[in-house]
Amino acid sequence: MIGKLIERIRETGAPICVGLDPNLSFVPKQIKDKAFEECGETLEGAAEAVWQFNRAIVDRVADIIPAVKPQIAMYEQFGLPGLQVFQRTVDYCHDKGLLVIGDVKRGDIGSTSASYAKAHIGSIQVGSKTYSPFNEDFCTVNPYLGTDGVKPFVEVCEKEDRGIFVLVKTSNPSSGEFQDRLIEERPLYKWVADKVNEWGETSLEDCGYSNVGCVVGATYPEMGRELREVMPKAFILVPGYGAQGATAEDLRPFFYEDGLGAIVNSSRGIIAAYTKDAYRDFGEEGFAAAARKATEDMIADLHRVGIHPVGA
Amino acid sequence: MIGKLIERIRETGAPICVGLDPNLSFVPKQIKDKAFEECGETLEGAAEAVWQFNRAIVDRVADIIPAVKPQIAMYEQFGLPGLQVFQRTVDYCHDKGLLVIGDVKRGDIGSTSASYAKAHIGSIQVGSKTYSPFNEDFCTVNPYLGTDGVKPFVEVCEKEDRGIFVLVKTSNPSSGEFQDRLIEERPLYKWVADKVNEWGETSLEDCGYSNVGCVVGATYPEMGRELREVMPKAFILVPGYGAQGATAEDLRPFFYEDGLGAIVNSSRGIIAAYTKDAYRDFGEEGFAAAARKATEDMIADLHRVGIHPVGA
Repeated sequence: MIGKLIERIRETGAPICVGLDPNLSFVPKQIKDKAFEECGETLEGAAEAVWQFNRAIVDRVADIIPAVKPQIAMYEQFGLPGLQVFQRTVDYCHDKGLLVIGDVKRGDIGSTSASYAKAHIGSIQVGSKTYSPFNEDFCTVNPYLGTDGVKPFVEVCEKEDRGIFVLVKTSNPSSGEFQDRLIEERPLYKWVADKVNEWGETSLEDCGYSNVGCVVGATYPEMGRELREVMPKAFILVPGYGAQGATAEDLRPFFYEDGLGAIVNSSRGIIAAYTKDAYRDFGEEGFAAAARKATEDMIADLHRVGIHPVGA
Repeated sequence: MIGKLIERIRETGAPICVGLDPNLSFVPKQIKDKAFEECGETLEGAAEAVWQFNRAIVDRVADIIPAVKPQIAMYEQFGLPGLQVFQRTVDYCHDKGLLVIGDVKRGDIGSTSASYAKAHIGSIQVGSKTYSPFNEDFCTVNPYLGTDGVKPFVEVCEKEDRGIFVLVKTSNPSSGEFQDRLIEERPLYKWVADKVNEWGETSLEDCGYSNVGCVVGATYPEMGRELREVMPKAFILVPGYGAQGATAEDLRPFFYEDGLGAIVNSSRGIIAAYTKDAYRDFGEEGFAAAARKATEDMIADLHRVGIHPVGA
């Protein structure tokens, strides 16, 4: 699956994904009004608004990006109707030729992680039939429980050609509280990085990368530099660009010279672009056009600092 | 909320919760056959089987226990129909007077954790209306992202009188891989324990405990002993009894003399009791009666080693 992602990145020249994290506050009033009119001020109404919002944005950006990253919490907060829209969004993105990175950050003891893996990137047997419930191409995984909490995901990656990104160093302000603490003079995140290498060994593809990747926040570029070296075969999913404060220059250390090795996510910076001064001219009605322009600007920003993967 | 849990524990004399983690392999053939006949070999059929299984067990154990702990992964693996049954199970348990600990192990950056908190233990505003999507009383939280990933849950605990259990030392075999590593000569799990104390400070109830509790696996009784001391006001959710190998003797260190301070979970040991030699006489048809007997036996086992909370 990582090979497919790289192929799409080369085709588009865009090592980025759009974070489909639609907080209701980002959804323009006209969409909310219409959804509430149809479904009432209900969870169904909120989910419908999110769906219309997502669809319009995906329609406008699908041809210039390789992948999207829906954050499941933003759907889960609307209960079952929200999760239905999560699933619909995954399916719709697939129809549009996009790869889907489910940002689910699951992780538990072995047998439980196996169920999460089935739910998100694998399939489950019901009698004589097999189903792929949420059918993401990649998902994010929390490593706190250690190898037996991650291995079930790796096994599904191998069996069903999917991928995972394991949290190594997250983008949030307090990520250092535990992740940076020194164990035998090396920070915890580097010990996790060692395990990412180990977990990914059996899942290498011809492209040279493993289906076991990692998450390292753009907000910590120095750590990005060292982790790029520590995990040479792990593709890095990089959150934190834009709204969380990281710049294109901060992204350089996560990439190899050929512009590969990482994929940068932007959520609010793209989907809520129309609320920012730079894109204010698009107006509320033009939220999807603003999202496309912000996506183009992000890609140009990466090219500007020399992050520019090219066709195979 | 922790006060309510303690009240129920005192009323029942049973510091335990039943883990409603219905892998399809635990569900008796007659229930699966009927569900597949009605709904086909579909995710809906699997979910229906799980629902009938859960309901029968809850009906048979509700009067002797304070709480249940559904593991959401076991529902998520059946996609939307599975999550619908998760929600139905939560509601049904509430109707039966049980408290519900949602074992969801969520945790993300601040704004995302806020959405998970709303989904599971809080409420969300849609226009002028407010909804509580999954409406659990407690949920479990993963601490890898640090304070800003946990605080949104704590804020919801305070605002809506709910509780959380933060993963400190998990019950699985490889939990030590990261959790036991020494930082300034103390294992990581103790540093997490310090934070549990800090996070819980503002959420103390009259009963003396905080709404911010923790998870410590019964499979590590020595660590249970030290963590009971390190986090004097944190109620401990203890998985690992029974199927995962821990005995009643192993549980003693997690409790205070009055039989309070912890709540022990058993999942397979109870819900799949009918498959074990000791309860084989109940037969497949008697799975719920077997579950009740296994629950009574577990409570007696705890009383035997002196873990016996009594009425206020």
